[in-house]
Amino acid sequence: MTEPAVPATMTAIAITAPGGPEVLVPEQRPTPTAAPGEVLVKVEAAGVNRPDVMQRKGLYPPPAGASDIPGLEIAGTVVALGEGARRFQIGDRICALVSGGGYAQYCPAPEATALPIPAALSFAEAAALPETVFTVWSNVFQRGGLKAGEWLLVHGGSSGIGTIAIQLAKAFGARVIVTAGSDEKCAACLTLGADVAVNYRDTDFVPQVKSATAGTGANVILDIIGGPYIQKNYEAAAMDGRIVQIAFQKGSKAEVDFMRLMLKRLTHTGSTLRSRPLAEKAALAAEVVEKVWPLVEAGTLRPVMDLAFPLAEAAAAHARMDASTHIGKIVLTVG
Amino acid sequence: MTEPAVPATMTAIAITAPGGPEVLVPEQRPTPTAAPGEVLVKVEAAGVNRPDVMQRKGLYPPPAGASDIPGLEIAGTVVALGEGARRFQIGDRICALVSGGGYAQYCPAPEATALPIPAALSFAEAAALPETVFTVWSNVFQRGGLKAGEWLLVHGGSSGIGTIAIQLAKAFGARVIVTAGSDEKCAACLTLGADVAVNYRDTDFVPQVKSATAGTGANVILDIIGGPYIQKNYEAAAMDGRIVQIAFQKGSKAEVDFMRLMLKRLTHTGSTLRSRPLAEKAALAAEVVEKVWPLVEAGTLRPVMDLAFPLAEAAAAHARMDASTHIGKIVLTVG
Repeated sequence: MTEPAVPATMTAIAITAPGGPEVLVPEQRPTPTAAPGEVLVKVEAAGVNRPDVMQRKGLYPPPAGASDIPGLEIAGTVVALGEGARRFQIGDRICALVSGGGYAQYCPAPEATALPIPAALSFAEAAALPETVFTVWSNVFQRGGLKAGEWLLVHGGSSGIGTIAIQLAKAFGARVIVTAGSDEKCAACLTLGADVAVNYRDTDFVPQVKSATAGTGANVILDIIGGPYIQKNYEAAAMDGRIVQIAFQKGSKAEVDFMRLMLKRLTHTGSTLRSRPLAEKAALAAEVVEKVWPLVEAGTLRPVMDLAFPLAEAAAAHARMDASTHIGKIVLTVG
Repeated sequence: MTEPAVPATMTAIAITAPGGPEVLVPEQRPTPTAAPGEVLVKVEAAGVNRPDVMQRKGLYPPPAGASDIPGLEIAGTVVALGEGARRFQIGDRICALVSGGGYAQYCPAPEATALPIPAALSFAEAAALPETVFTVWSNVFQRGGLKAGEWLLVHGGSSGIGTIAIQLAKAFGARVIVTAGSDEKCAACLTLGADVAVNYRDTDFVPQVKSATAGTGANVILDIIGGPYIQKNYEAAAMDGRIVQIAFQKGSKAEVDFMRLMLKRLTHTGSTLRSRPLAEKAALAAEVVEKVWPLVEAGTLRPVMDLAFPLAEAAAAHARMDASTHIGKIVLTVG
């Protein structure tokens, strides 16, 4: 296929100043090019993630070399190949993890962190996968070492990450407890396969985890909350439990008694995806292709879709995420 | 060798009430017998450890089935074999990790957690090894995964555990920074092979660790302090650093900012030795025999000996540990 014409400028969403959703404004920007090892993607859809919100607020500056345009995952069509890029061809439908720049009509992506879109998936669905799948695989399975027969506790079970964590854990033979902030969200998690869902607004999750696990506790805890949950996680964890911290929606500071960490031989760890070197992301992508992508191709693993907003309405998409009433993934559609 | 006569009663140290060293009082007790898989040891020396102090204060009750007599490590001679015990013979010189009962003339020991005493070692030196060697191997090497070329930070470098940690880490090619509470203790650590020693009474260890490691930080931290050190450990740790908590001399509660734990992908974990099932201690002992005992036999690894006290003066031994002026191991000699 011949290389499609790429316009010199494109529409992208700028963060005009740190602040609320209204600081997200469409702008004309020079269309980026594909560096060596990258492909240029004509974006059809882009996922919206909590780190984008943090970046909008000025609390999560892009790493060195990354675009100042928000957006960490995209789906679209390959329109140009950077030097040495040979995994994909012009016209291929791909989704990819990117280090920024996703809220735009064009975005370069390292071919090493791109994945082919299975035929049954729309661009919007495909754009909803990379950040959540990479995050869940690296934190729950690699870092947390979740094994078949173990109990996974997921805070924010109805979030984009939570909904993928439920499905993946079940697909690999684990049992799942989630916390979520409404009965509707809890019901959505149970429909996805969660064994137990706890509405944290009216119920303390610690005794619920204890009773669901016959007193043993959770073997792996995936936590996006932090703050007061940290002590509770130590209480809810099983002997030799692993607690993986991937965000701090209620703050990163807490007064904690670490006695249980020692007596239960817990492992409290965490990670962020964006800051990892490309080589590590590439290795992670290779494992995702091998272990997770067959489930996506088979239709076993599907993203739970909340609403799609046109690119120009990125502010409305962020307002919805700020309100935290969504279930599953919010995406932007482009073009 | 015929089975030596074992008296019906023996002298042992009782904890008459929770309290200071003075609650440790010699008593006559029935001589214990060897259960299946155990050997009965005529104790020649017993190590004194911080958990004994905690037990004396009523803060660390013996686990179910363990003796109420303090003492977690012994050296002596095998005088009787329990049913099925066949690793050792009557008359063998052994040292062993026990779950209690070490401050006594006789003590049963699981053969699985006993080790032969190399010819060059006295009973007092041999009694100083099990608790520290098992603790350092399981926490620094197994749990912490220390590798050659990495930096180990040891708090309490001149303690029994600290002095073994320094020697073992150096023997396996790591570099070592210690904290200790006096210039004399720091000097002792440097003599043992530590690369850097920080007197914590006049110097903040965080910048010292940063400068010693050219800004990288410590790859593994072995911490017996807790409290305000927990936040400092997160600051002093390298990317992907492992922090292993084995005691809380300054308390287990702290106000901590966990952001660095996530951003640096730290692993904060911990363990206690005494509570582990016998099967795990046996597996640990087998690895110690393979990896560490050759260094003891070669004279490369030797316990640093503080003072020896007669069994009846256990109170004086504890008073010395409470004062924290000792360097290396305090032991009790028996018989």
